Amino acid sequence: MPRRAAWGIIGGLTPIPERTMQRRDFLLATAASAALTAPGMGWARPASRLKVGLIGVGMRGQVHLAELLKREDVEVVALCDIEAYMLDTALAMVAAAGKPRPRVFTGSDHAYEQMLADADLDAVIIATPWEWHAPQAIAAMEAKVAVGCEVVAGITLDDHWRVLRAQQRTGTPYMLLENVCYRRDVLAVLNMVRQGLFGELVHLEGGYEHDLRAVKFNSGEPGKPYGGGVEFGDKGWSEAKWRTPHSVRRNGELYPSHGIGPCAMWADIHRGNRFERLTSYASKARGLHDYVVKQGGADHPNARVGFALGDVVTTQLVCANGETILLTHDTSLPRPYSLGFRVQGTGGLWMDVNKSIYLEGRSPEPHRWEDAQGWLERYDHPLWKRFAAQAEGAGHGGMDFFVVHAFVEALKAGDPMPIDIYDAVAWSAITPLSEQSIREDNRTLAFPDFTEGRWRDRARIFALGADY
Amino acid sequence: MPRRAAWGIIGGLTPIPERTMQRRDFLLATAASAALTAPGMGWARPASRLKVGLIGVGMRGQVHLAELLKREDVEVVALCDIEAYMLDTALAMVAAAGKPRPRVFTGSDHAYEQMLADADLDAVIIATPWEWHAPQAIAAMEAKVAVGCEVVAGITLDDHWRVLRAQQRTGTPYMLLENVCYRRDVLAVLNMVRQGLFGELVHLEGGYEHDLRAVKFNSGEPGKPYGGGVEFGDKGWSEAKWRTPHSVRRNGELYPSHGIGPCAMWADIHRGNRFERLTSYASKARGLHDYVVKQGGADHPNARVGFALGDVVTTQLVCANGETILLTHDTSLPRPYSLGFRVQGTGGLWMDVNKSIYLEGRSPEPHRWEDAQGWLERYDHPLWKRFAAQAEGAGHGGMDFFVVHAFVEALKAGDPMPIDIYDAVAWSAITPLSEQSIREDNRTLAFPDFTEGRWRDRARIFALGADY
Repeated sequence: MPRRAAWGIIGGLTPIPERTMQRRDFLLATAASAALTAPGMGWARPASRLKVGLIGVGMRGQVHLAELLKREDVEVVALCDIEAYMLDTALAMVAAAGKPRPRVFTGSDHAYEQMLADADLDAVIIATPWEWHAPQAIAAMEAKVAVGCEVVAGITLDDHWRVLRAQQRTGTPYMLLENVCYRRDVLAVLNMVRQGLFGELVHLEGGYEHDLRAVKFNSGEPGKPYGGGVEFGDKGWSEAKWRTPHSVRRNGELYPSHGIGPCAMWADIHRGNRFERLTSYASKARGLHDYVVKQGGADHPNARVGFALGDVVTTQLVCANGETILLTHDTSLPRPYSLGFRVQGTGGLWMDVNKSIYLEGRSPEPHRWEDAQGWLERYDHPLWKRFAAQAEGAGHGGMDFFVVHAFVEALKAGDPMPIDIYDAVAWSAITPLSEQSIREDNRTLAFPDFTEGRWRDRARIFALGADY
Repeated sequence: MPRRAAWGIIGGLTPIPERTMQRRDFLLATAASAALTAPGMGWARPASRLKVGLIGVGMRGQVHLAELLKREDVEVVALCDIEAYMLDTALAMVAAAGKPRPRVFTGSDHAYEQMLADADLDAVIIATPWEWHAPQAIAAMEAKVAVGCEVVAGITLDDHWRVLRAQQRTGTPYMLLENVCYRRDVLAVLNMVRQGLFGELVHLEGGYEHDLRAVKFNSGEPGKPYGGGVEFGDKGWSEAKWRTPHSVRRNGELYPSHGIGPCAMWADIHRGNRFERLTSYASKARGLHDYVVKQGGADHPNARVGFALGDVVTTQLVCANGETILLTHDTSLPRPYSLGFRVQGTGGLWMDVNKSIYLEGRSPEPHRWEDAQGWLERYDHPLWKRFAAQAEGAGHGGMDFFVVHAFVEALKAGDPMPIDIYDAVAWSAITPLSEQSIREDNRTLAFPDFTEGRWRDRARIFALGADY
């Protein structure tokens, strides 16, 4: 079988034209969105059972598929991928679950368009390479198919505006499937934040500090995604195929949502608050080259590749309500995994890297860290209390259950998406903004207000109860 | 006894004129400095015993005094302070050590000038309120009295240039007494950095995260510096008198050297590297007001004071060699003490907040933190190996021994200062630069090259052996 470029990425990172959005487009789009009255408008809400398709059933799509297959309120009716290996795996999963065989759409980078036209879907989950998220989400929303989109929302800043305008124009639900918002400690801390244990929040930190070197490089052999070689791009497989080229060409906070998502929920971003400014710094890039040389030898062709992505990228943000947020992206160096969370207010702080908390007047000793575990258990979020057993075995310590659950339940109820289009584009737009900041000698940039003022009056909806 | 303003601070933060340094001054100063050939020039090196004076014998000066009194190679010949309580305490310390009573200079904010003129000093240690460091250091250097200056070097950016130019003009030794550079773990990690255990450094973090609320406020009663009230300024005592007004009027990284000093040594700043750019962000200011209200009640007059200093101030820097550095200043909220160090390179990383390390190929388990203690002991710096017993009992876990020791030994040897004028002004200038960055909506600023190009060729001198 001839090797094909995964989702056409190798020819260029952005499959949709990079034309700058014109003022006229904005006005038209704004006029269109102003005509909308409710988030779900234009999309026909299903009664109690969703017909769902998946665009992308690679390593990540399969995790979502596994969750969907467990549910009685979901029918997986269509799968789309360009890779036979992944489709075979996914179909075997469906068969093993005793569910009807879904229709398969493949054979072209644009097979998803056929699926959206033909498969009579209520919703689609997009788990393709990043550069396809925006065009596929836009196409789905145009087809009135609700979108559950894996992180990220788009590549360029314009992508983010286009995804937003498509959602506003069509009224089709769009949710970013940011799973870390549902991590057990993250939700427990959210619970504590909302109950005032940290006092007034002043500073937050998060990030993505994960040694991805064995994800970014492999042998290219199907079925062996992690390590075992220093190939990437055309010669790599799975994420090494499509993700690593981003490290070659781009320098920025390439994966912001796992860090910023929880911070945004803690700080009520777009619910009375918003990001105001941002500055990013990137260290020199050494880790990936070093890895290639160590694993593949100095003579390996990839030892001549220049990687643009700085090993450690830090991004400072400040919010309308005065909180500062710090993000760290660190995926090219040897290191233990950490999302580096810190939640700090006038009452104390929690940090996850040392699994510790300090709450003034509540922690046993002044000026001394306390193990956070007791607090996290005492303030376990109602969602985890209710669904912990169901979440067990789901991806990423159970949080993948919750994100799919929330998407499905909110759609069934006709409720607004718990991680909505504004969250999606603002969190994800940190990437192109950080790239610009770094490119322009760490210039500080005003953060676009994607909500166009709506952030002031929108009420909090995320994880309010025990339903989803 | 009528209460007096400590060192005249209350009338204004900067006792020397804030005139912007003119181009002409720079040229003159540069010409003068170009004529110098060696760092010690113009200062008469003593043989084996130093006559030392102290300007400022408050809480901090007394710690240095205790170290000086233990030494046979130092004669404390003069003390200067404006506060009788502090002078009495210091004189009692001298007497208790069985040393001759030093001359005392007091009675005026400018008594130090008399001391510099009359006391026949080899060196002076300056431990006064921050705003006096620059004028007192300049006066001492002009008087050919070597300066060991407590952190910080000055207030405004111009202060820093003036201190630098005075040093260059006079050739008098100047050392910043940044004790954390000598902390046992910091030096062990320096040892590891230099032996290549972290590979090539790419990212560093440090800071000053210390709940100073009970330092910034007290009852004003002499001898009770910590807590017990919510007074400051005229009505406060010790640091509450002079330090807290900085939190009222200034918003920035007010105390950078404990964090940046070690980072600068790890990254060889001014020894083939330098800071290139900086951006600072400040969170909202809540902690100090909250503390006043909680401790003193909402009706206390200080509950109406507006504090300018953001509770958490983060500062990003990038270096000429591509390393990024992140500083955190956090002194107004309830929290355990931490300097938040992180040293990260292509070989792994150390963090002090979780007391952990990970070194690829050396740590027992891939992707797993390891307790750092074993490594810190194995790479204990030669200075600590040699002097640990002597350092025992010295301030701040022993590191105060080392910083005074280094100052005295380098002076006796006629060696360059181990933390020299360039280090002093660059580290300390982070404060006014951060203030400017924050004032100008987090603008990114070019970092002034105080070395005027000399950073490229200067060889490393700090903590090279077991002498000092």
